[in-house]
Amino acid sequence: MSSSHPPSLNHFDAQGQAWMVDVGNKQASQRLAVAQGAIQLSPATFAALEQPAHNSPKGDVLGVARIAAIQGAKQTSALIPLCHPLPLTHLSVAFALDAAQHRVVIEVTAKTVGKTGVEMEALTGASIGLLTIYDMLKAIDKSMVIEQVRLLQKDGGKSGNWLNPNQDSMA
Amino acid sequence: MSSSHPPSLNHFDAQGQAWMVDVGNKQASQRLAVAQGAIQLSPATFAALEQPAHNSPKGDVLGVARIAAIQGAKQTSALIPLCHPLPLTHLSVAFALDAAQHRVVIEVTAKTVGKTGVEMEALTGASIGLLTIYDMLKAIDKSMVIEQVRLLQKDGGKSGNWLNPNQDSMA
Amino acid sequence: MSSSHPPSLNHFDAQGQAWMVDVGNKQASQRLAVAQGAIQLSPATFAALEQPAHNSPKGDVLGVARIAAIQGAKQTSALIPLCHPLPLTHLSVAFALDAAQHRVVIEVTAKTVGKTGVEMEALTGASIGLLTIYDMLKAIDKSMVIEQVRLLQKDGGKSGNWLNPNQDSMA
Amino acid sequence: MSSSHPPSLNHFDAQGQAWMVDVGNKQASQRLAVAQGAIQLSPATFAALEQPAHNSPKGDVLGVARIAAIQGAKQTSALIPLCHPLPLTHLSVAFALDAAQHRVVIEVTAKTVGKTGVEMEALTGASIGLLTIYDMLKAIDKSMVIEQVRLLQKDGGKSGNWLNPNQDSMA
Amino acid sequence: MSSSHPPSLNHFDAQGQAWMVDVGNKQASQRLAVAQGAIQLSPATFAALEQPAHNSPKGDVLGVARIAAIQGAKQTSALIPLCHPLPLTHLSVAFALDAAQHRVVIEVTAKTVGKTGVEMEALTGASIGLLTIYDMLKAIDKSMVIEQVRLLQKDGGKSGNWLNPNQDSMA
Amino acid sequence: MSSSHPPSLNHFDAQGQAWMVDVGNKQASQRLAVAQGAIQLSPATFAALEQPAHNSPKGDVLGVARIAAIQGAKQTSALIPLCHPLPLTHLSVAFALDAAQHRVVIEVTAKTVGKTGVEMEALTGASIGLLTIYDMLKAIDKSMVIEQVRLLQKDGGKSGNWLNPNQDSMA
Repeated sequence: MSSSHPPSLNHFDAQGQAWMVDVGNKQASQRLAVAQGAIQLSPATFAALEQPAHNSPKGDVLGVARIAAIQGAKQTSALIPLCHPLPLTHLSVAFALDAAQHRVVIEVTAKTVGKTGVEMEALTGASIGLLTIYDMLKAIDKSMVIEQVRLLQKDGGKSGNWLNPNQDSMA
Repeated sequence: MSSSHPPSLNHFDAQGQAWMVDVGNKQASQRLAVAQGAIQLSPATFAALEQPAHNSPKGDVLGVARIAAIQGAKQTSALIPLCHPLPLTHLSVAFALDAAQHRVVIEVTAKTVGKTGVEMEALTGASIGLLTIYDMLKAIDKSMVIEQVRLLQKDGGKSGNWLNPNQDSMA
Repeated sequence: MSSSHPPSLNHFDAQGQAWMVDVGNKQASQRLAVAQGAIQLSPATFAALEQPAHNSPKGDVLGVARIAAIQGAKQTSALIPLCHPLPLTHLSVAFALDAAQHRVVIEVTAKTVGKTGVEMEALTGASIGLLTIYDMLKAIDKSMVIEQVRLLQKDGGKSGNWLNPNQDSMA
Repeated sequence: MSSSHPPSLNHFDAQGQAWMVDVGNKQASQRLAVAQGAIQLSPATFAALEQPAHNSPKGDVLGVARIAAIQGAKQTSALIPLCHPLPLTHLSVAFALDAAQHRVVIEVTAKTVGKTGVEMEALTGASIGLLTIYDMLKAIDKSMVIEQVRLLQKDGGKSGNWLNPNQDSMA
Repeated sequence: MSSSHPPSLNHFDAQGQAWMVDVGNKQASQRLAVAQGAIQLSPATFAALEQPAHNSPKGDVLGVARIAAIQGAKQTSALIPLCHPLPLTHLSVAFALDAAQHRVVIEVTAKTVGKTGVEMEALTGASIGLLTIYDMLKAIDKSMVIEQVRLLQKDGGKSGNWLNPNQDSMA
Repeated sequence: MSSSHPPSLNHFDAQGQAWMVDVGNKQASQRLAVAQGAIQLSPATFAALEQPAHNSPKGDVLGVARIAAIQGAKQTSALIPLCHPLPLTHLSVAFALDAAQHRVVIEVTAKTVGKTGVEMEALTGASIGLLTIYDMLKAIDKSMVIEQVRLLQKDGGKSGNWLNPNQDSMA
């Protein structure tokens, strides 16, 4: 990719103005996207997440974050200005507790049958899920860091399948 | 902090059920929060952001992301389940282009006069801003990574001011 | 249905985690759902609804509630966490005033052409319509009760048509 | 209350037009409202809720419904046309499983410090929570009925405290 | 006002970046704004509005538009990017049918007690109300024109009261 | 069109009640709508827009308004009560600065592939874009007027193509 001809950004028209790209003539197809991200906790906060006070059911923080991720993914086109609205046909959310590094990993899978992909839906769901974990734990730790939010996989559409070369899914 | 008495999570009641904490008796005060995050680009994508095709105005990607961050921050209590709604009195968004590491850094400042803090508003704004950058550049690069989303500073409220010990603001 | 093998809940995956079920491979078909509900008023409140003060147009409370029901039905997938978003092709709302029991009955019909049903849209519309009636009359009566919100009929989809055995439509 | 002078409806102006009542001159005060409702299940569905398949954590249906109730309550002024927006300071949701009648009872408590009450927030939260239970169980039972959605208690404001004469809280 | 020193736009910071202005130190005060607008109909469409077919209640189009205006005004800060969220204390909507010019005039009054004005809420409500009239009549006339949407009056705040010199209210 | 038989309004059923028309049996087709509108500024305000203070990038007001128009168009079915939700496949926004009359003209193009048209999406986008310009300039001029919001063109659907006889596009 030469620096004198940088790739064009399709979210802008020929005059460089932002628009919502025309996908009307694209074929509807099965689309899938998987996104992942993590939140880094301190050891004490990770312990609180694993052994919550008051005998509360383990995993409740994650249960709330799962619902937030699903609800957030459904709001993607309202949140990301140039993102097309599309009817999601599937959303699932998985968590992994990485005790060695005291991190929580989230993985969101989104699907649709449509004219455009669902990468943003998966990524938005992952971000909202992680923000919800931050919110629920921030009374005991404000130093948590959301990290490594990225696309793992994308299937469907003209450009075909894509796997992130840098990362395997935890699934 | 002993492992046998992990700190309690105030987003759960005495039975361990999620709730929206009662802040009715807290004093209203001036609140401020600053959050930061970054998106890691490839060198070619960073060049495209700096020198967009078609003579489009430099910084337009960031202009769209700024508005998305502001709009997203205002949706925080609808997105984060246990977050209190509150009327923001100020939102600002700054970007820094880190050419050495080909990263874009976002910093969101949120303020209110109210009974609870605006950390989640600042963090949500930063996340939505970074997701919007991803969306606008993903046609040329799907490997971008959102990183280091965290709180830098929090002022106001009973717990007083807090500065993240690990990070200075870019401002 | 034996008690030792309770039916599985399809809103949970094999690990018992909540998800939005995958409907991507279901056939799109004409879908219809009819839901009904009622609000029980005191005799005096029912009279106020029938003969409003100040010569206001009879039925205005119901006119507002009709719009609220339609608008609410369109928000269903944002309100019900595991509900799929889908583009409704029709919504209608009917009211019946039951003077003998001083109740207002609402009936909402929802349609789509899609991969999943519209039961939740009809039920949510009915609920929001009844809540709106409560809101508009609560200055004179806080004891009103919303009752008998249920599905009357469901057409379309693999499971075919279903009629509630306990209730006839008022239509 | 004589039938010849029915009480006036304050959601209409002197010409009988719907409006959002002016509360600008009311005093801000601590406000509380408690609403309750129930969903009637069949015995088999109640058993599925109590003993879900696949060893999924007991109460997960209720965990999702709790978050939906909280999120829904925060959307009240967007859903109920003449309802004032106000910043809730507290929301909590409790469930009771009534094994004798195979019903689930929901109770939502809402608070604010403001110029108008939070009855609609509590009632809307209860309705959305019950609709969410319906959604999650409807694959095994479409005949469930939402019942007895009503206000139990209201504190604060000029009209003072009010207790529903017909019903005790389950709390 | 000299062309060499155009007035500064307070929706931009010192670097010319869009932000949501800081109103945290402004005094809360009673605020009022009145906005007006109109929709120009053809004579035949105006007649249809005045004498709807099927004996439907006169004014129903306007009844729906009134609710849309109120609901839309409450969404203002979600729609207008740099607009502060604030809790409205009052909204009312009036219509006038101008038979001579076959126009419908809408007038929206908004109030709050807060740190910033409600001009945008009144103007947004008027616009959404007029768009709703367009929507309901467009099957018979696509040539309608929305006109003269403007602020009539603004009270409260540091800048004090303001009356549009070009227009009287219809109230 | 005789006055004794005014055309019927299809947003009402046979009893004159508002509903969301049934479009389930209409054919999906490519749909396009173009809407236009303008905001009239004073000469000084027009100059401020063209030559903003502080060396801020020319056109930034319009950049924010463009995003607001796109975001607003996507909210159309939530704002206009009887409007069908539909997945937009394209949105673009153009501005023209009319220095002679010191007006800003906005033109919004919306497309979908669906069972109903996108006129309201184009008109709503144009209105929200103009309101955003008002918001950003109102600190220096409260007398701006939004004018001439109307449909220019409509393609697709059973009724075929339509061009507004009174107005040419600026495109």
